[in-house]
Amino acid sequence: MRKTMLTATLLAATAMMAQTTSFTVSAKDEIAANHYLAGSNYLDYDRQLPTAQLTPAPKGYEPYYMSHYGRHGSRWLIGEGDYRNPLTTLREARDEGMLTATGLETLKKLEKFYPTTVKRLGDLTTVGERQHHGIGRRMAQNFPEIFKTKNLPIDARSTVVIRCILSMVAECEELMAANPTARIHNDVSESLQYYLNQPWEGRVRDLGRRTGDKETREAQQRYTHPERLMKLLFNNEQYVYNNVRAGELMRQLFDVATNMQSHDTDIELLSLFTTDELYDQWRIRNVGWFLDYGCSPVTDGIMPFSQENLLRNIIETADTVTQVQATLRFGHEVCVMPLACLLEMNSYGESFSDLDHLDDTWRNYRIFPMACNIQLIFYRPKKGKQGDILVKGMLNEREVSLPAHTDQWPYYRWQDLRQHYLKKLADFEAGK
Amino acid sequence: MRKTMLTATLLAATAMMAQTTSFTVSAKDEIAANHYLAGSNYLDYDRQLPTAQLTPAPKGYEPYYMSHYGRHGSRWLIGEGDYRNPLTTLREARDEGMLTATGLETLKKLEKFYPTTVKRLGDLTTVGERQHHGIGRRMAQNFPEIFKTKNLPIDARSTVVIRCILSMVAECEELMAANPTARIHNDVSESLQYYLNQPWEGRVRDLGRRTGDKETREAQQRYTHPERLMKLLFNNEQYVYNNVRAGELMRQLFDVATNMQSHDTDIELLSLFTTDELYDQWRIRNVGWFLDYGCSPVTDGIMPFSQENLLRNIIETADTVTQVQATLRFGHEVCVMPLACLLEMNSYGESFSDLDHLDDTWRNYRIFPMACNIQLIFYRPKKGKQGDILVKGMLNEREVSLPAHTDQWPYYRWQDLRQHYLKKLADFEAGK
Repeated sequence: MRKTMLTATLLAATAMMAQTTSFTVSAKDEIAANHYLAGSNYLDYDRQLPTAQLTPAPKGYEPYYMSHYGRHGSRWLIGEGDYRNPLTTLREARDEGMLTATGLETLKKLEKFYPTTVKRLGDLTTVGERQHHGIGRRMAQNFPEIFKTKNLPIDARSTVVIRCILSMVAECEELMAANPTARIHNDVSESLQYYLNQPWEGRVRDLGRRTGDKETREAQQRYTHPERLMKLLFNNEQYVYNNVRAGELMRQLFDVATNMQSHDTDIELLSLFTTDELYDQWRIRNVGWFLDYGCSPVTDGIMPFSQENLLRNIIETADTVTQVQATLRFGHEVCVMPLACLLEMNSYGESFSDLDHLDDTWRNYRIFPMACNIQLIFYRPKKGKQGDILVKGMLNEREVSLPAHTDQWPYYRWQDLRQHYLKKLADFEAGK
Repeated sequence: MRKTMLTATLLAATAMMAQTTSFTVSAKDEIAANHYLAGSNYLDYDRQLPTAQLTPAPKGYEPYYMSHYGRHGSRWLIGEGDYRNPLTTLREARDEGMLTATGLETLKKLEKFYPTTVKRLGDLTTVGERQHHGIGRRMAQNFPEIFKTKNLPIDARSTVVIRCILSMVAECEELMAANPTARIHNDVSESLQYYLNQPWEGRVRDLGRRTGDKETREAQQRYTHPERLMKLLFNNEQYVYNNVRAGELMRQLFDVATNMQSHDTDIELLSLFTTDELYDQWRIRNVGWFLDYGCSPVTDGIMPFSQENLLRNIIETADTVTQVQATLRFGHEVCVMPLACLLEMNSYGESFSDLDHLDDTWRNYRIFPMACNIQLIFYRPKKGKQGDILVKGMLNEREVSLPAHTDQWPYYRWQDLRQHYLKKLADFEAGK
């Protein structure tokens, strides 16, 4: 009895450590040290690579199955006006002679970059392609027991969005290079979308539609202070007042600037912003994404259930696995983020109501940089040994805590997790 | 002088041999021997694999560059009603008690297959995926000097259509398996469409729009004889006359039946048709495709110029090659067929006016089965040797004749071909 309590205490300590280790430094300090983090979902995966060693397999166990969901790598911005709108604003001001030297230089950079964006909105970039080559390579390195298996069957599927398919290509090419005998089946089809990028349905759609907008607008209002930036770019305050939506322009430039890390380019715009401004702009997005996809009280915490079909697919596919194999799925951050919450990785399944202090406990860049991914690694007893199937979860290749008891973190009994998740899904279905 | 003439005569003989070898058997006899051929562009590539050995490289030469354009592999039919329409016609007749035993059996087969088509129209099938694994594997086997090169750069691009991208994936996976050091860059983007699947423009659009329809309709009229098939399916001729568009139903069933070879299935429908009917239905499509994409006199022979940008890309890319490498492009039969004509492979650059005897000289299944492809292999003198760059052309992995003189078929001086093609494009641009 005493031993059990001790174990539980140790466990709790370990679990807390796993969570709190990430947050010993404030978000603002992290962003000050690495401006790229302010990019939220535009963060280049390779600028935040894991450094910790993976925990060795439990004694007598070997990994035999990987179940994976990964987001596409870095991409151009998507919206029709994302590049054109700030460009137009600055061009008009230049024509009126209203730009400072910095304003002119900024315009020049945008003019130089703009042609690369034509018919390229949303496309995977070379940076994004490289991220997935790296992830695929490390998969094979981290789990050779799986990925070096002769004639390994790999089932790899992607949403119908081309940048996701190309991300799949990069990983699969690396897996073939690591194991020329692998037998990969790739599939992409509208018929798979129901779980690879489930449309918002039922309560998720109803609550997702009407909540969070007010709070997001409030955050935008509170954290947008464009005065300094406008003075930096324009030489006439009256012109700005009369002709420019300053807050909008600031957010537009911020998006272009933070997403420049998605390209192999020396065009640099991040230095337009102070660390305070980067942090403030990031906070707006940190709050917004939490409201849309996290366990926010505003949506009764149900948005993670947007990935109900995906979690079912993960469980049901795992149920069919009787030999060494891998299931790879490729899609979007709007799936990875709520899936991490639904799986209750680390503290992402918790609800936070104090949006002003949200980033003490929730930092979106830890969850969904470009190419973010969730890997569930299944372990079985080695030949001749007995024992339960165990699972290790990894978010962006970092081991995480999962919602079950364990005395050998980060390894959990799959049956415990499976039961927990199925009950959770059943309760949701029942409207609880 | 005498020697030159002799060489020219030999050459002509070789060239003719290259063409006429293919046509010693009539199209009807070929189709009788292999019903799948009647599928035109639905033909499974693997049911018509090349058997001839490739000609060894010329003495002192080695292959160093492959320039490739390939069509996606086998796919589901594309049109919304392709499966539903014939199903509906037969269902209605069944409800009225108007189907024979064969009609009922046919309906049962369609009913069984239909669910696999939901949200799958146009998707690559497992048969199609396998075709490209085979092609990629043979590429590496046929040209190890290229594909086994350490750190080989491969530039692989596809149209934005998913079945094309997945075809690219299959080939690239094989190339990585053959050479784990290969460095593949994959790209898919709207910005590449102008040459990967050029829209009909200018004279091509003007002539392509209005010509051939009359001739296609005439061929349809002449070669459609559904009477026997209707008697086979329906037990009441008056019902057919009153309720069924017999010619349309025949063509619909023919499309479903011939495309069943695109699937790993034991559902079989081809046996509904006699060899005569298969041949007749194929003729309609053989004529139609020739009119749309071949050097038909009806369009002044200009439809192959629909691939003007693609040919320019092939030439301009080849101009940049200074090291061992490969350029792979993936797209559609509506590009491969006119490209083969534009390149004047074998006799495909010739004009034929007698549509009733078209298949003596033009058989679409030789040009564009599923996964059809054009490979241009560039050869350079081995280290320490001197000589011109030579090129070998392959259509569906078979060596072809090209529009230049050579004394070592199938190898041609690249400069001769390059000059010929550039002049041809310039003349077209000049409106000649």
